[in-house]
Amino acid sequence: MKDLAEFFKSNHERYMEELFELLEIESISTNSEKLKEMKAAATWIEKHLNGIGLQNVRQYPTKGNPVVYGEWLGAKGMPTVLIYGHYDVQPVEPLDLWNTGPFKPEIKGSKIFARGSADDKGQVFIHFKMIEAFLKTRGELPVNVKVIVEGEEEIGSTHLADFVKKNRKLLNCDLILVSDTNMQGKNTPSITYGLRGLTYLEVSVTSLSGDQHSGTFGGAVANPIQVLAEILVKCKDPVTGKVKIPGFYDDVVKLTKRDREELERIPHDDALYAKKLGAVKTFGEKGFSTIERTGARPTFEVNGIWGGHTGAGVKTVLPAQAHAKVSMRLVAKQDPAKIAKLFVEHVKNVAPDTVKVNVKMYENNGYAALTPLDSPGMTAASAAIQRVYKSDPYFTREGGSIPVVADFQHLLGVDVILLGFGLPDDNIHAPNEKFDVSQFKNGLLTSAAFLEEYAGLKV
Amino acid sequence: MKDLAEFFKSNHERYMEELFELLEIESISTNSEKLKEMKAAATWIEKHLNGIGLQNVRQYPTKGNPVVYGEWLGAKGMPTVLIYGHYDVQPVEPLDLWNTGPFKPEIKGSKIFARGSADDKGQVFIHFKMIEAFLKTRGELPVNVKVIVEGEEEIGSTHLADFVKKNRKLLNCDLILVSDTNMQGKNTPSITYGLRGLTYLEVSVTSLSGDQHSGTFGGAVANPIQVLAEILVKCKDPVTGKVKIPGFYDDVVKLTKRDREELERIPHDDALYAKKLGAVKTFGEKGFSTIERTGARPTFEVNGIWGGHTGAGVKTVLPAQAHAKVSMRLVAKQDPAKIAKLFVEHVKNVAPDTVKVNVKMYENNGYAALTPLDSPGMTAASAAIQRVYKSDPYFTREGGSIPVVADFQHLLGVDVILLGFGLPDDNIHAPNEKFDVSQFKNGLLTSAAFLEEYAGLKV
Repeated sequence: MKDLAEFFKSNHERYMEELFELLEIESISTNSEKLKEMKAAATWIEKHLNGIGLQNVRQYPTKGNPVVYGEWLGAKGMPTVLIYGHYDVQPVEPLDLWNTGPFKPEIKGSKIFARGSADDKGQVFIHFKMIEAFLKTRGELPVNVKVIVEGEEEIGSTHLADFVKKNRKLLNCDLILVSDTNMQGKNTPSITYGLRGLTYLEVSVTSLSGDQHSGTFGGAVANPIQVLAEILVKCKDPVTGKVKIPGFYDDVVKLTKRDREELERIPHDDALYAKKLGAVKTFGEKGFSTIERTGARPTFEVNGIWGGHTGAGVKTVLPAQAHAKVSMRLVAKQDPAKIAKLFVEHVKNVAPDTVKVNVKMYENNGYAALTPLDSPGMTAASAAIQRVYKSDPYFTREGGSIPVVADFQHLLGVDVILLGFGLPDDNIHAPNEKFDVSQFKNGLLTSAAFLEEYAGLKV
Repeated sequence: MKDLAEFFKSNHERYMEELFELLEIESISTNSEKLKEMKAAATWIEKHLNGIGLQNVRQYPTKGNPVVYGEWLGAKGMPTVLIYGHYDVQPVEPLDLWNTGPFKPEIKGSKIFARGSADDKGQVFIHFKMIEAFLKTRGELPVNVKVIVEGEEEIGSTHLADFVKKNRKLLNCDLILVSDTNMQGKNTPSITYGLRGLTYLEVSVTSLSGDQHSGTFGGAVANPIQVLAEILVKCKDPVTGKVKIPGFYDDVVKLTKRDREELERIPHDDALYAKKLGAVKTFGEKGFSTIERTGARPTFEVNGIWGGHTGAGVKTVLPAQAHAKVSMRLVAKQDPAKIAKLFVEHVKNVAPDTVKVNVKMYENNGYAALTPLDSPGMTAASAAIQRVYKSDPYFTREGGSIPVVADFQHLLGVDVILLGFGLPDDNIHAPNEKFDVSQFKNGLLTSAAFLEEYAGLKV
């Protein structure tokens, strides 16, 4: 693989320039005012896929943001790998906590700082450059490759399942490769074999038709913020950390002995972990380790809350409404729609009769996913990591959700390999998101080695 | 009093024009960017007090907004009434719920809509016009009059106590008259004999040094919003509505038989009251009527809450912090500083060791106030109401706080008469604040009658 390694090395400056162009595009999919930027990102990728030598490149319109597709099918008799990534990014607020402009990429201390640097523009870009390197140095790839890059991952891949259903033939493949997850560390490479699912909802409590004076009316009616607090406390036990929604744990696949051993093997220091997060200490569901709680156990988290006077100073208001955004991370085989329904029923049951309660469901639901440790894709990925990182990978479970991974498994009937090059301190979804340049470089080599290993298995 | 009544009638159009000028000034004292507007309001009042015939009119600077003073001391041998009001107003958010511009006063259906129309510009303006009418028609007032109008009532009259302490001789008087409260209704006039005190605080819960991804880190550490909810629930019982802060009720003066009878006499329909507020039903401390709960019993209310993602759409964030503004309305003889201290101790006691908790105290603290029902001022006020409204006033307690009233009682050693012309549906501190024109007109007559009655008592 010396030819590729040299090609990667001599083109690194150009890679950074190209990646910065993509990172500068403010493609925030949760923001409906950024439609122009979404289109700009899709168009940038379309041009880029053409440039690296893919064929039949085009944008497929959806009811939301377009999906960009490209392929190279010149490896006759060889399997086909579908590479998936996304060009949309998370919102950037609170802006005052960023040390650089979120859309002004900058390399500081061998880290690329920008929104999307790790999640996922920087990671999917690795595969673009891997493809380019193969085609420019050898004129061919070891397997057939299809690439799809969508623009709605951060809003639950809303229209991708529909796209996949309508284009089963186009997307027909033997394996799906996704780089949108983390490794445990630079020197402790790992492969993710499980992802959590997600259901996201919004609870609104209304007690009055309008805000009132808290002196004149305080004591007269239920306070909607107080009631919302009561509801939240009835959803999670303050002491055991257990979710108190009846039926919540019914379908959870229990951790096997092997699972717990693999997860236990992963280097982890709870005190150090807490310190890095700036937390006093770790906390969560009793009876499970932090690694288990963040990857292999379901959670209930409040993602946002607001109501009444939230500005500076004092306002003696009795608020009319209070709202909370809550999400539950799910594990196999919890059904997101069923869990959402259980939550809605629970909220209605525990809410007092002094208020009106409404629960809004978002479409950001997704199943959890698991890939067998002994599957061909996992074997190839493990060998590729070995070649580049010179060490056995850990097998981990990622706490985040990529709903499309479960969709792919269900709709295309093939395994998904999550070969992520992010690191735990990348600050994805937070201020100061970054991606290590060394992970980018090792990513290129690992991505190339993966295709070679997978081809070598002659699956 | 025919001369005054005719003067009031023939000058009504001019009164509205003048009042609108004052209402147009955006004198929001909680907003530090409105210092120019605060000064403009003070200057308007200074000019106006000169115009109506007061003497020694001037602005007294304070460390905050200026106090405007004026006097007429020509009634030899007669007592002196100090009239107090405030020219500052509450914030106007949320703007989208206003049907008119908050600072574009408009008369619709015989109601004056504007921020400050009832609280308190419109009410203190009544006394300006009463003074003018006496001086223009009779050349004298029946008693000596001093007027002070401050600009910090909505932020707890921060610098007024200091001003009073420094100007005891200037403010020397026999009685203080304040119109900054409500009547029960247009046809059910009432006099407020008690006000609640206030202590206002802000609780912040921190679990992380920065926001994190709720997938990657969900389940690892305590969620600050969840912990804040737990703290709030530990402050107020969801079923009994009792405040659960140890020691909270220790100094509360119990309601007497006479108190409960007077409050019971006030016309009130709980279902109608709830309906008017758009509430499903009333709720509060068990064992007390709604009128008792809103005027004569202390409360714990959350005035605002925020944390994590509060914008549109989905953001899968594990927030680093959550905040709540809380206030407690107090009754005689609860000490605001002591109650604040009990709250801080309670929060520290009930908060888990997984987070950092900080409680910020605001300076908006104030004692509750009570004025004897058989005092000369109350007798004069009762008679004045009788003359204008042709009915016995109810004696009520107001749930709101005017910290300065308690300060006046303590510092000047005289009774405070709360002769308010607001109505319960005035939406003070909320969108669409209004003041009824008929209450303005009756206010002029009652204010004039009060001075005559008080003079007649030859106290």
